[in-house]
Amino acid sequence: MNLKLDEIAHFLGKEASETPGPEISGVRPLEFATDKDITYVAEAKFMRLLGTSKAAAVLVPRGMSVPERPFIECTNPEADFARLSKLFYGYPKKSCSNVSESASVHPTARIGDHVTIDAYAVIGKNAEIGSGTSIGAHTVVGEGVSIGQDTTIFPNVTIYPCVAIGSRVIIHAGAVIGADGFGYARDVDSSGSVMNIKKFHSGSVEIQDDVEIGALTAIDRALAGVTTIGADVKIDNLVQIAHNVNIGPGTVIASQSGIAGSSSVGSFGMLGGQVGIRDHVSVGNGVVLATRVGIYRDVPDGSVMAGSIPAMPHTIFLRVQSLFKRLPEMLERIRNLERTVLQNRKDKS
Amino acid sequence: MNLKLDEIAHFLGKEASETPGPEISGVRPLEFATDKDITYVAEAKFMRLLGTSKAAAVLVPRGMSVPERPFIECTNPEADFARLSKLFYGYPKKSCSNVSESASVHPTARIGDHVTIDAYAVIGKNAEIGSGTSIGAHTVVGEGVSIGQDTTIFPNVTIYPCVAIGSRVIIHAGAVIGADGFGYARDVDSSGSVMNIKKFHSGSVEIQDDVEIGALTAIDRALAGVTTIGADVKIDNLVQIAHNVNIGPGTVIASQSGIAGSSSVGSFGMLGGQVGIRDHVSVGNGVVLATRVGIYRDVPDGSVMAGSIPAMPHTIFLRVQSLFKRLPEMLERIRNLERTVLQNRKDKS
Amino acid sequence: MNLKLDEIAHFLGKEASETPGPEISGVRPLEFATDKDITYVAEAKFMRLLGTSKAAAVLVPRGMSVPERPFIECTNPEADFARLSKLFYGYPKKSCSNVSESASVHPTARIGDHVTIDAYAVIGKNAEIGSGTSIGAHTVVGEGVSIGQDTTIFPNVTIYPCVAIGSRVIIHAGAVIGADGFGYARDVDSSGSVMNIKKFHSGSVEIQDDVEIGALTAIDRALAGVTTIGADVKIDNLVQIAHNVNIGPGTVIASQSGIAGSSSVGSFGMLGGQVGIRDHVSVGNGVVLATRVGIYRDVPDGSVMAGSIPAMPHTIFLRVQSLFKRLPEMLERIRNLERTVLQNRKDKS
Repeated sequence: MNLKLDEIAHFLGKEASETPGPEISGVRPLEFATDKDITYVAEAKFMRLLGTSKAAAVLVPRGMSVPERPFIECTNPEADFARLSKLFYGYPKKSCSNVSESASVHPTARIGDHVTIDAYAVIGKNAEIGSGTSIGAHTVVGEGVSIGQDTTIFPNVTIYPCVAIGSRVIIHAGAVIGADGFGYARDVDSSGSVMNIKKFHSGSVEIQDDVEIGALTAIDRALAGVTTIGADVKIDNLVQIAHNVNIGPGTVIASQSGIAGSSSVGSFGMLGGQVGIRDHVSVGNGVVLATRVGIYRDVPDGSVMAGSIPAMPHTIFLRVQSLFKRLPEMLERIRNLERTVLQNRKDKS
Repeated sequence: MNLKLDEIAHFLGKEASETPGPEISGVRPLEFATDKDITYVAEAKFMRLLGTSKAAAVLVPRGMSVPERPFIECTNPEADFARLSKLFYGYPKKSCSNVSESASVHPTARIGDHVTIDAYAVIGKNAEIGSGTSIGAHTVVGEGVSIGQDTTIFPNVTIYPCVAIGSRVIIHAGAVIGADGFGYARDVDSSGSVMNIKKFHSGSVEIQDDVEIGALTAIDRALAGVTTIGADVKIDNLVQIAHNVNIGPGTVIASQSGIAGSSSVGSFGMLGGQVGIRDHVSVGNGVVLATRVGIYRDVPDGSVMAGSIPAMPHTIFLRVQSLFKRLPEMLERIRNLERTVLQNRKDKS
Repeated sequence: MNLKLDEIAHFLGKEASETPGPEISGVRPLEFATDKDITYVAEAKFMRLLGTSKAAAVLVPRGMSVPERPFIECTNPEADFARLSKLFYGYPKKSCSNVSESASVHPTARIGDHVTIDAYAVIGKNAEIGSGTSIGAHTVVGEGVSIGQDTTIFPNVTIYPCVAIGSRVIIHAGAVIGADGFGYARDVDSSGSVMNIKKFHSGSVEIQDDVEIGALTAIDRALAGVTTIGADVKIDNLVQIAHNVNIGPGTVIASQSGIAGSSSVGSFGMLGGQVGIRDHVSVGNGVVLATRVGIYRDVPDGSVMAGSIPAMPHTIFLRVQSLFKRLPEMLERIRNLERTVLQNRKDKS
């Protein structure tokens, strides 16, 4: 696709520095932009980097002077960069239905208009797929699942029965939605042997509108009730969301994080990668959790939490590590010293 | 399904407080129970919560007084709750065979009675599938795999050749059983370049009876010998079990934990989420590992281990973090103080 | 396969202690070897363990005396063990093409000689598959993907469009290559509500020759440019490689590690399991990262880094944990003591 700069400005509801301006065929960050691309500078302090870029044009914060390069002023250049990335590279909208002959669609399934169902996909009994939605090859949509409009599900995804998925959702390859939550009761049998007795999960999962779910992420169904992923939540690859978890709207969760059973995270939070949240914990709204933190108790709204130990040279760590266990002893020795020194002072006076 | 309370009591081998008692159509925890459900109170100290529940009846610990609600006394109410969850929500037992026309079943495969094989499943050469077992859509059962009776394998699972799976096993979607273990020898080629030489794995995997394996969990085959998952072991989603690992019976392993090559965990252990156990380590029987701990050496039977650092406000952590490296220096300064103060005392006396 | 010891020596370009020597039908580590197997002793210090093995013959370091057992002297016995594991247990080479009738191969795809395509595999438009390569059941090879020669892709793998994969690559079941990177811009809509705007990713992924990728590992496409996995890189199961990451040749990455966006790791590194590397960080060549470390800043060439906290008995950890936050206070108390003691000394003199 090729667009003149002023057409791009018009798409963004803004004005270009020239009309019609250069022809643009793509949108890329500064260091990757070719002389056919538009790029962006997120903040004034990065303007000096613009000189290193080959970009034909640039999205800049309002009020910048931009020497010798066509530009568009934006309140939020990064957001407009993202909007343009959809314009140039977004998933194609389908104007007709395209159901593979090899797909297995149950006769009771209700399929909307302009739906794509790729090779070997399986659509179960009474499933419902909204208009404009596309289902990848080998994806399994279980019995009674409902999926909204313009949702994109990539290949090899498994959606267990009765899960509800909204509109404009994206689910990447290999994700598993609605498997049983992990719960057992321990008991002893008549011979006194310990055994684990599975709790079968009668609850469900609800994925609200505009959610994105990464590759190989698992979201378990609730024991009873619903595991809920709020609107506009974005989840990266290899994330674990356990049964009965509730994620508020707009929260972003990076790769390999895990949220244990019955915990909740509020709205518009940011979770770094490899975060762990234990079960039955409530994390508030607007919370930022640094990468790799472990959360063991409730976190108030607006908190910024860190806590995972950073790497250091191995030889140093060997000594540090041995001192962790001796921290109580070190504190005790400090206390003893304080007592002795105080006594010395008293003795003297 | 609807059952009278006394029918439920009879199923559990217990007695109801009334006969026939209310009609029950489901089983849910206190806060989710409707007025058609039976619920449970795990321990005496939670009896006060019962008032908040709409449940029609309740499983209670023996010896409780239960005002105005039909009940069943149980030695272990949570275990009986789990038994009822199977009664109401357990996977349906099949009374006839149901092999999809689109499944690819090798002519040499031996398929038992009442087996379900869903759409596009692939059953390899000489594979053996026991009676009552069901194989999900798109699941691949490799050459020479044996699967016992009444086992349930969900869609999109991959079972590599020659893996042995027991009876009443549950394997959730996307799991991979029997991929090559991760092992290489480093060498230099004739030109002096470093290279990694793969160790091809000739061993196998054995999944014993009553095991449950979560979605997207990987269990690798042994280099030689067998990676063994003992009877009644329960493994959550996204767990890594490396080559030649041995897990004793009844152990429960929560999500995103990883056990490295040739390590073992004893029987009836409990591993929290995101636990890591390094290679060639032996964890004893009945060990509890708190969520996110790292195990670097053998752990004796019955130990309760913790050790991952909890989150704290980011501003505090920045200061704490810088002090980790200074712990050896802090200890040295304490020692110096002790020497000086002792000397002061001596000087004085 | 059965080979005489001297045939094995000849395959390795070495000499056997006897000719023809015993007949060998397999290769296994000391403790697993049968009396038909050849085994190996990696280093002189392990020679004493040889007595416990049933092996018919042994690969030993040069200069060892080997009592009563046929042997082959090797510069690097472990590397020769790995070479023999391929000889005995390597994936079979195909001498003819074998494309399943149930596979869905786009008419524009270019398929080399001796290619295996298993049941229900999907090969997209303009995809290119080199000679000797095999594609597992249910694997999806997207539009425009190129795959080199003698590559092995196991079942249920998803390769997104336009990914480039080299020769002699191994990709295990369930892996996902080329999903969108995780990137959003936050903005407010006209009503003041916060929203996440997806950055659509126009970049790609390049997997170079001789790479191995574990089961259920995710490698994301670049925002622009290429996510690059260098030649001979070995990646374990459940690993996350984010957009625009660059891994140098020969580096080995153990299970459940994660490397965040735009970070790089040099050549011939070793990353233990559950390592985390944050975004925009550069890890040098030949770096060793111990299991579970978190990397938050650049690491120079050749560093050996550790830093994750080891497990300890839970009762001890409860006390230790509470002292982490008090480290700044402890340092302050040490400083005060030092001042006071110094003052005492001055007062005295």
